[in-house]
Amino acid sequence: MINIDRLMHDIETMATIGALPDGGVRRTALSEEDRQGRVYLASRLRAAGLEVYVDPVGNIVGRREPDDPGADGAAPPRTILVGSHIDSIERGGRFDGVLGVFGALECVRSLNDAGVSTTKPIEVIAFTDEEERFFGFLGSYALTGEIGYEEISGCTDNEGIRLVDAMAALGLDAGRIREARRDLAGIGAFLELHIEQGPILEREGASVGLVQSVKGDYRWRVTVTGRTDHAGSPRAGRQDAVMAMHAVMAHLIAFRDREGDDDATLTFGRISVEPNIETAQAGKVVFTVDFRSPRGEFLDAADGFLLELLETTGRQTGQRVEREPILIEKPVAFDPTILSLVEASAVAHEYPYRALYSGAGHDAQVLGRHVPTAMIFVPSAGGRSHCPEEFTKTEDIERGVTVLYDTLRELATR
Amino acid sequence: MINIDRLMHDIETMATIGALPDGGVRRTALSEEDRQGRVYLASRLRAAGLEVYVDPVGNIVGRREPDDPGADGAAPPRTILVGSHIDSIERGGRFDGVLGVFGALECVRSLNDAGVSTTKPIEVIAFTDEEERFFGFLGSYALTGEIGYEEISGCTDNEGIRLVDAMAALGLDAGRIREARRDLAGIGAFLELHIEQGPILEREGASVGLVQSVKGDYRWRVTVTGRTDHAGSPRAGRQDAVMAMHAVMAHLIAFRDREGDDDATLTFGRISVEPNIETAQAGKVVFTVDFRSPRGEFLDAADGFLLELLETTGRQTGQRVEREPILIEKPVAFDPTILSLVEASAVAHEYPYRALYSGAGHDAQVLGRHVPTAMIFVPSAGGRSHCPEEFTKTEDIERGVTVLYDTLRELATR
Repeated sequence: MINIDRLMHDIETMATIGALPDGGVRRTALSEEDRQGRVYLASRLRAAGLEVYVDPVGNIVGRREPDDPGADGAAPPRTILVGSHIDSIERGGRFDGVLGVFGALECVRSLNDAGVSTTKPIEVIAFTDEEERFFGFLGSYALTGEIGYEEISGCTDNEGIRLVDAMAALGLDAGRIREARRDLAGIGAFLELHIEQGPILEREGASVGLVQSVKGDYRWRVTVTGRTDHAGSPRAGRQDAVMAMHAVMAHLIAFRDREGDDDATLTFGRISVEPNIETAQAGKVVFTVDFRSPRGEFLDAADGFLLELLETTGRQTGQRVEREPILIEKPVAFDPTILSLVEASAVAHEYPYRALYSGAGHDAQVLGRHVPTAMIFVPSAGGRSHCPEEFTKTEDIERGVTVLYDTLRELATR
Repeated sequence: MINIDRLMHDIETMATIGALPDGGVRRTALSEEDRQGRVYLASRLRAAGLEVYVDPVGNIVGRREPDDPGADGAAPPRTILVGSHIDSIERGGRFDGVLGVFGALECVRSLNDAGVSTTKPIEVIAFTDEEERFFGFLGSYALTGEIGYEEISGCTDNEGIRLVDAMAALGLDAGRIREARRDLAGIGAFLELHIEQGPILEREGASVGLVQSVKGDYRWRVTVTGRTDHAGSPRAGRQDAVMAMHAVMAHLIAFRDREGDDDATLTFGRISVEPNIETAQAGKVVFTVDFRSPRGEFLDAADGFLLELLETTGRQTGQRVEREPILIEKPVAFDPTILSLVEASAVAHEYPYRALYSGAGHDAQVLGRHVPTAMIFVPSAGGRSHCPEEFTKTEDIERGVTVLYDTLRELATR
């Protein structure tokens, strides 16, 4: 079985790298803190006897060779990939990503301890920039060959630092990013263990979540250009951009209530108002619209509805109402065969579990479009994540990693 | 009659003091630019033969003595006060305030030119800090005795500069502010000419606006404290502060539509969202609610409605929804006798005119609670103000100042 103390030691050590005073971490992709985390991870992979390499996009891989690679002349066995990421957002928690990487490493150490022979190679992987400092899922997109230098050459973070410069600071040549592409036919499966980032498992007393799919995520930036004017100007003839924004939001909320089920979410995370003074009607408002659902038809309908709504609102208010897409990610369903292995493990250990969706994006959704993939969730206390308060009980971590271990062992040995 | 060229020369000169590259002005109260404007104004008041003094709050006054002050032993004649302000907002226009001060000066010059004897003193006045860099209507509140040192001692601008320091830099002792108080029984009337800051006069082809009242203005800061969470978290159990804000806005808009007439306005000028990132539900939103109406009953009803609404919204969403008042200004009706003099002048000159309300606050509303007061509006092109594009046609200025002249002459001589 797995060694939970050994794993918690790793998780706690990682929490000291980029530690914030309030218990969170700031280890943004390709930062100095990320570099320190990478050094620690590589040392731990090596200590477990893995062969470590860094691919051209900075993904860190620790490889465990199979004991019986098959007969000469047969096709080489397909690799089982398992991992997540070690970068964080600006004020992140200590479990998001780190659990999946070091949990995977713990599984490999436990295979070693138990002297398990596998027929397939296992690679523990930490993907670069999952959290979108520069380019969300950079590492997994590069690995699946979906992006090259042209897609990232102009890319900067919020402070204007260029991705290519941040890569160079860590010794990575952005010009070679295409070489990170893997032969996907050679990958047999991808597994990712992650915290839930929602309250469902905790609320229902489950320790293990069988992730059916990552919800699709359609996200736009909507810009309303009205006319700024004194808050004392008469009611007739106003072109108050906040009022137009409110009308758009009202229609979108009604659309979600009418067309969406309980798994359909709508979030307006960002609102910026100009001039943003209490005595002026807003001349301009920019806000974000984020729809998520496991059902692609719902998201496509939301897309069409928004397009028409903005045109109607523009016509009715005399304001310019435009959108630009930020993200169009279709839902990605996970592999039922692997999910049945995950479930069998939970049943065998009598761990309470349940099926659910992921509302957040993960590297598993990028891999899941190309290779058989599954995700396992463990509970987030209070459903909180992306904040210093992020917490998962050690008992739940042990259960999640145990299920990951069983699933990995099954996939790598059969 | 008035000399429009002489007046336009003054307005254009003032527009060079604190001029912005795009034609606007930045002459915020008690700034270096304001000081320069004060120097110019004082020189022009003196050049017109007025006795100039600066009161302890920095109001600049130019006094024209009556030719026939009445018999010895009789009560001294009551002063006719006429003016506005010369300070601007951060990015203001060239007419707001300046027109009313230099228009008043032009009326006095024209009385001098015509050799008109008055029975009452006339004082041209420029009030300090109308535009609320530190404390809105500072000059008129001090003159009417509504504020003293205790109200302003802790007051700072948005950059944290203290009002008492800014006053000291212009040679004013904030500790003496109470001494700015006037004997209001000695003031016979106050007149203020101002740009409309709305589109009504232009739209209806009127050159002169008879301001019936300044609308009351009830303004609050509403703070919604929800719980920030990932935009991917499930729909159930969310405490998204933007969604609670949206619900409050929806009910307030419905209230305005149901209970308010065409003169009732509602503005949400300022919205700030935390953490304000597209992938997170907001944990906190602060926004402003500004209701204006000439009808006090409507505003009082809005006050009660909002209070109850916030309580209901808090209960329904499980979020903390609180308000704090920014401003509670009741409507101020102007003096019907003076307004009839204004109207008589417009009729005599065959100027197109109409009655309207002021949605913006003015020093006249402060004076209007104590002495017979009236305001005259001239059109704002496109209804725009508080912006560099602010513009009023010279013909309309001439008409507005002519009506001001007639009214002032009538009040000062009868």
